Amino acid sequence: MKKLINDPNNAVLEALQGMEKAHGDILKVNYDPDFIARKTLKNKGKVAIISGGGSGHEPMHGGYVGLGMLDAACPGAVFTSPTPDQMEAATKAVNGGAGVIHLVKNYTGDIMNFQMAADICADEGIEVKPIVIDDDVSVKDSLYTAGRRGVGATVLTEKIIGAAAERGDKLDDVVKLAQYCKDNGRSMGMALTSCILPSVGKPIFEIGDDEIEMGVGIHGEPGRERMKIKPANELVEIMLEPVLSDISLENGDEIILMLNGMGGTPLLELYILFNHAVDTAKKLGIKTVRCLVGNYITSLEMQGFSITIMKANSEILKLWDAPVHTAGLRWGI
Amino acid sequence: MKKLINDPNNAVLEALQGMEKAHGDILKVNYDPDFIARKTLKNKGKVAIISGGGSGHEPMHGGYVGLGMLDAACPGAVFTSPTPDQMEAATKAVNGGAGVIHLVKNYTGDIMNFQMAADICADEGIEVKPIVIDDDVSVKDSLYTAGRRGVGATVLTEKIIGAAAERGDKLDDVVKLAQYCKDNGRSMGMALTSCILPSVGKPIFEIGDDEIEMGVGIHGEPGRERMKIKPANELVEIMLEPVLSDISLENGDEIILMLNGMGGTPLLELYILFNHAVDTAKKLGIKTVRCLVGNYITSLEMQGFSITIMKANSEILKLWDAPVHTAGLRWGI
Repeated sequence: MKKLINDPNNAVLEALQGMEKAHGDILKVNYDPDFIARKTLKNKGKVAIISGGGSGHEPMHGGYVGLGMLDAACPGAVFTSPTPDQMEAATKAVNGGAGVIHLVKNYTGDIMNFQMAADICADEGIEVKPIVIDDDVSVKDSLYTAGRRGVGATVLTEKIIGAAAERGDKLDDVVKLAQYCKDNGRSMGMALTSCILPSVGKPIFEIGDDEIEMGVGIHGEPGRERMKIKPANELVEIMLEPVLSDISLENGDEIILMLNGMGGTPLLELYILFNHAVDTAKKLGIKTVRCLVGNYITSLEMQGFSITIMKANSEILKLWDAPVHTAGLRWGI
Repeated sequence: MKKLINDPNNAVLEALQGMEKAHGDILKVNYDPDFIARKTLKNKGKVAIISGGGSGHEPMHGGYVGLGMLDAACPGAVFTSPTPDQMEAATKAVNGGAGVIHLVKNYTGDIMNFQMAADICADEGIEVKPIVIDDDVSVKDSLYTAGRRGVGATVLTEKIIGAAAERGDKLDDVVKLAQYCKDNGRSMGMALTSCILPSVGKPIFEIGDDEIEMGVGIHGEPGRERMKIKPANELVEIMLEPVLSDISLENGDEIILMLNGMGGTPLLELYILFNHAVDTAKKLGIKTVRCLVGNYITSLEMQGFSITIMKANSEILKLWDAPVHTAGLRWGI
């Protein structure tokens, strides 16, 4: 194993310290329990939004803490759920009295731990609403999941509901919006290679020199099919069809499209894939009106990509275009 | 070879088409000869800045075209210099009558081809000033280079002189500033793995499972030493010492520090490396006042990182902080 780390046991801690040094203008890190929060913690009267999950998917979620997006993020160990005390401490730290949303990706550990934290906070009078994102159309039920896995739509949801909370929307309205994002965001991923957990030191799955895992999860979970590598355009078509057909889209509908790298994929290749994704959607009468192309939800050094789409409307686009200032996403400010 | 491409011969073309679809609000692509330019080509009275080089280093350079940075970028084939007709066409397209700067990384092919284009443009009355960036302290002379290689300081220079040109600085002043960046920017890189050129289909160099190439070039050129992998902090110290000591820095001096991934390195690891780079500089009395942490000048899917520093002053920081709107770097707008 060749990794740019010191000690596997300190990797997340040192990365958090690095994040704080790099982005000290927008965030600060609380240690033990670990969470990343906006530099100015409390925003009285504002709905607070918290997400979290295992580390190794950077920039998600800590890279999305800041104005117009998350109030706090709870990083677990690599590919491991954060513990309830992290979510509890984060919730209490950023609660501005207008309610707190827990934006959770659908993994059993994440859901259980966020729920425990929510219960404790509720007992102390903090109104917490959980939203579970389960956008991955690849498989139903998976290694760590009952139902669909939660993946890339989480990033888009964080941006959209983050903007709504920032402009002062009330808790119920932000929850409704999050429900819209959950209902209208879909994803699918694939991998050329595995990644290596620092603590394990070997690939989390074996894959042949001419094979890909179609429908892979962000923790290397098996997908739909182990298949031979195909040209980029064919891969895009194989993935976009189930993604687009899983929500009701009509001719002329508009989408936000994220062409996401798994961490080890050249940007050159992501643009090639994006090029064909837009063309493929267009042939089906679907217009790509906003996009992200790059590494937004990763699996360490895994090579591969995922496609996430979200059905847009004028309100969604307005929130998408609103200013955001985070380590991973920034515009308008 | 597993690559997310269709045909190696069309990879750059399709990536350019993807870029144009993704960032059509800020840039457009001219095909045959290929160059990426701002959406609004001519900016009368503004010094124009053009860079370019082989593809495979994305987001450099096309990702730095836009307000506050480059006016145009000329992409060659992967790891191959663009041809003179590309630079000639780009120069003529963006020339606003106030002079054009060719910002060139020090590779023999790039310099020769930019020079040929500059000569042709000069004959037609366009004032072209070349600036050659040669910031890589790893080795003197290399596979494709007489003298030092040009690497990461190019990105920082593009940002800084781009801001100066945007506010209306005259040609001579922008050239002086570029000279400052050239004189005060230094870099060094290392690799854990090779990358694979789409057209070749096998790694450009062989490297053992426990080895790294210290001082590697962005085309996989040999560095100073093939050594055994070491902990992240040791690697940072090995690289930062020659980088910092190559320019005159005094106790209390301030720097911009870029901790750059080679394309296949997890962001988690880049933050670990950045954390120690800042601490190491601090011990030497050097203060990191601005930074970039991420993939800014890459070598396809190569795993590894580079450190670039530039000595700062109030004027440099003012230009650094000025608004920029490109695919790869964006703030204040």
